[in-house]
Amino acid sequence: MTDPFKADPAFEAGSTVVCDWPLCQVRLQDDARFPWLILIPRRAGLSELEDLTAADRATLMEEVVRAGELVRMLGEAAGRPVEKLNVGALGNVTAQLHVHVVGRRPDDGLWPDPVWGRGSALPWGAGALQAAVSRLRQEARRSSAG
Amino acid sequence: MTDPFKADPAFEAGSTVVCDWPLCQVRLQDDARFPWLILIPRRAGLSELEDLTAADRATLMEEVVRAGELVRMLGEAAGRPVEKLNVGALGNVTAQLHVHVVGRRPDDGLWPDPVWGRGSALPWGAGALQAAVSRLRQEARRSSAG
Repeated sequence: MTDPFKADPAFEAGSTVVCDWPLCQVRLQDDARFPWLILIPRRAGLSELEDLTAADRATLMEEVVRAGELVRMLGEAAGRPVEKLNVGALGNVTAQLHVHVVGRRPDDGLWPDPVWGRGSALPWGAGALQAAVSRLRQEARRSSAG
Repeated sequence: MTDPFKADPAFEAGSTVVCDWPLCQVRLQDDARFPWLILIPRRAGLSELEDLTAADRATLMEEVVRAGELVRMLGEAAGRPVEKLNVGALGNVTAQLHVHVVGRRPDDGLWPDPVWGRGSALPWGAGALQAAVSRLRQEARRSSAG
């Protein structure tokens, strides 16, 4: 059977694929204001956590933690270490189940408000985006080998 | 050893204890605009998901799903069935690790924005709050017996 998973076009427009983990597609949000990853479970037809099996939910939780490590790494690389992780599964705008993992700092311009639906994205720019994705892929490979 | 867990005073001010689950204290947010529960892992000194053990994280995920069922029940009871669950672990304002589980509808006044940091809470009022807490306790007992 072919995998019927496909990321919603809204994700294609605003983020870039980093890699696939056992459960999720990992994407970098194209918004240089925050180190920000999106995890999309690679299953068709999901919109709520309850739509996953309990085993997949446990995997999702571990992938969220692993994404947090990558987000911290991105913040370090930018000279802006993450002080708080924000994790959210909302889906009010794009219903396909996905989890945001965002690195926050008191000087990030939106603190302490959530990032969703506020302000406009600041695109990374092609070179910086590609560099960040390469760094993330390298790190993701290292952590899965560890 | 005594359990050193204690909910931050900010939670005491804005929400009411419903019950304790294996990992989390379950609280009802005192904001009648949304059916809204808060789960606080009953461990001391946590601020990020990575501070929990992997076993506790798996439990937390299952308690989030269970809280979602209670939130849906609250929405039904109010004649306003939940159309989307919003789940978030932020902690920018109150650092103690906690997870929000909020029932949303397109007509809820803030949709599609997140609920955090927007508008002012609409207190339930003593009678309605007590009725909601009683209903939640009854339902939480039923689901744990099932």
